[in-house]
Amino acid sequence: MTVYLEWENYRKFVKAAFMAYGVPEEDADICTEVLLDADKKGIDSHGANRLKPIYLDRIEQGIQLPTTDWEVVRETPTTAVLDGHDGMGQVVSYHAMKMAIKKAKEFGMGMVAVRNSTHYGISGYYTDMAAKAGCVGVSGTNARPSIAPTFSVENKLGTNPLTWSMPTDEEFPFSFDAATSIVQRGKIELYEREGRDTPEGMVIGSEGQTLTDSGEILDALVSGDAALAPLGGIGEELAGYKGYNFATVVEILSSALQAGPFLSALSGVAADGSKKKFHLGHFFIAIDTEAFMGREIFEETAGELLRELRAARKVPGADRIYTAGEKEYLVWQERKETGLPINKSVQKEFVKIRDAAGLTDFVFPFEEEA
Amino acid sequence: MTVYLEWENYRKFVKAAFMAYGVPEEDADICTEVLLDADKKGIDSHGANRLKPIYLDRIEQGIQLPTTDWEVVRETPTTAVLDGHDGMGQVVSYHAMKMAIKKAKEFGMGMVAVRNSTHYGISGYYTDMAAKAGCVGVSGTNARPSIAPTFSVENKLGTNPLTWSMPTDEEFPFSFDAATSIVQRGKIELYEREGRDTPEGMVIGSEGQTLTDSGEILDALVSGDAALAPLGGIGEELAGYKGYNFATVVEILSSALQAGPFLSALSGVAADGSKKKFHLGHFFIAIDTEAFMGREIFEETAGELLRELRAARKVPGADRIYTAGEKEYLVWQERKETGLPINKSVQKEFVKIRDAAGLTDFVFPFEEEA
Repeated sequence: MTVYLEWENYRKFVKAAFMAYGVPEEDADICTEVLLDADKKGIDSHGANRLKPIYLDRIEQGIQLPTTDWEVVRETPTTAVLDGHDGMGQVVSYHAMKMAIKKAKEFGMGMVAVRNSTHYGISGYYTDMAAKAGCVGVSGTNARPSIAPTFSVENKLGTNPLTWSMPTDEEFPFSFDAATSIVQRGKIELYEREGRDTPEGMVIGSEGQTLTDSGEILDALVSGDAALAPLGGIGEELAGYKGYNFATVVEILSSALQAGPFLSALSGVAADGSKKKFHLGHFFIAIDTEAFMGREIFEETAGELLRELRAARKVPGADRIYTAGEKEYLVWQERKETGLPINKSVQKEFVKIRDAAGLTDFVFPFEEEA
Repeated sequence: MTVYLEWENYRKFVKAAFMAYGVPEEDADICTEVLLDADKKGIDSHGANRLKPIYLDRIEQGIQLPTTDWEVVRETPTTAVLDGHDGMGQVVSYHAMKMAIKKAKEFGMGMVAVRNSTHYGISGYYTDMAAKAGCVGVSGTNARPSIAPTFSVENKLGTNPLTWSMPTDEEFPFSFDAATSIVQRGKIELYEREGRDTPEGMVIGSEGQTLTDSGEILDALVSGDAALAPLGGIGEELAGYKGYNFATVVEILSSALQAGPFLSALSGVAADGSKKKFHLGHFFIAIDTEAFMGREIFEETAGELLRELRAARKVPGADRIYTAGEKEYLVWQERKETGLPINKSVQKEFVKIRDAAGLTDFVFPFEEEA
């Protein structure tokens, strides 16, 4: 039977957990909002299941700090570089996009690059901030080496999302948030949690063979014995070089604007095999629609365009044509009523977090039912 | 035997042809540079073979004007909207990117949207202008409906390139210029000229079947009986929705910022079946690397990153790993010595253009050899 967590309790628990690990209250609110945004949208690879391994464990391991003393390194009317000083990636990123939006409102556009950061959650959270403000939002981040360049078997590029949000006249923005690989690491983590194999053609081994064992893939991605295929697939036949190049665009923008590390330097593993700080880089762009023909006409045009796409002639047998952000909106319509479904593996992690952090006030529904 | 045209003669011929069709000299220089840039880079789908059908024929048909009375519709410190008034797309686009670069040099970033334009050639020409000026360049354009959304068989989206150039410390910029479909129309035109079939999986027919007859595909793309598959392929299995969404990003940015038409309205065919003006939209972004940590460190970082990609472990049996813009640079190293190879079909078009325009000074080498 599926177990659901009621949203307000879940939110309180996540915030309390961040705070128990040393994140200041205001920052814990930001980290909680970003994490919950993934859960609300049904991006289950980046929500509840990441609280412990990606954030709390890393704070405990000392490879990221719970406090985020972010600093403005350089600033012009439309641009800035922020240093996250190895704090919470979500916190410096939230402030970076806020700054980009402010600049866009004043000058038409804004772009902020971030250095010395950590995992920032779903990039769509930040680009949606821009869309809510009437701006086109763009964001990307580098990440642990995962994607092999075309004709290579070596994990070099991060899964490097190139994410876009646009305001529309509908209930939800156009919001396209996806890795530039066919799948991303979080999806394989989810396959593994669910005990499923990874479909063929998405991951290549060191001899060029397809790998499908999800647990083996996760280890092999870290050891360098496997790599994700870029969008478009292995080789050039179906234009895999385009996915490879989109990933490279994000890798360059995430590192070269802030003069930071890239590719294999982002492995998170030191020469002696110990875990080390990631020093990730991100970028955030906001473009004010008011600086062109106006927000209203932009939103109407985008809305009409998306509705025309949904009304296109369907493949015989297909149910429906979606536009980006629509499925996520529909998931939220359902989940806001049911609460957040969580699987056994996450349930166990939540109990561990609670007990370790002494958050004795929290009792989970799966415990009552057990 | 391959026939080559010497560059200076070829350049003079193209310019004279544009001028004979009414393009003013200064504008003809721009149109010639953009066309030749494709030939130099080996993007043979967008070079010599397009002079007659895409530019000169359309001027003759009255669906685009040889003179380009472009106009600034709206302007802010970092943004502008230009109207091309159905003139030469290359001309208004050249001025748009020049304006974006100027704004970037002054304020850090610049973005210009263009309305009522026509086919602008290869988008990489404009983004490379930005890279040469030390800026990150981005450009995109809408186009005739060609790509089907995921789960649709209807050609709705243009092949909508999302093109990026970045300055590096090497001889050539990182320059990623590609359609968001697996292949673009120009490539299929080239297959057809060469009498080759289109590989499977790239084009879907109205029943969802794969089409391979290149001539039939070109007609069917216009009549709406076939559509290109987005990058990632047909359906969701290998993430075709990502290519679909990249194409949608470009479609929105190309139309909503300038309040212009989109999707099926860009078919170029009126209700009565006659050809009509396209009213295309484009966008151009320049981001000054000096507004971040500086051009020198950007170029070094990008260069190091690209060299690390090329040095990645290769698939057993693979020769070499390329980065974007490298193959194009290598083609030019060869072609600048040999001249431009042109096939029989283009040879015939060139003779037709010359004779129709009375450009009697030009004698082509393939005529001497005949």
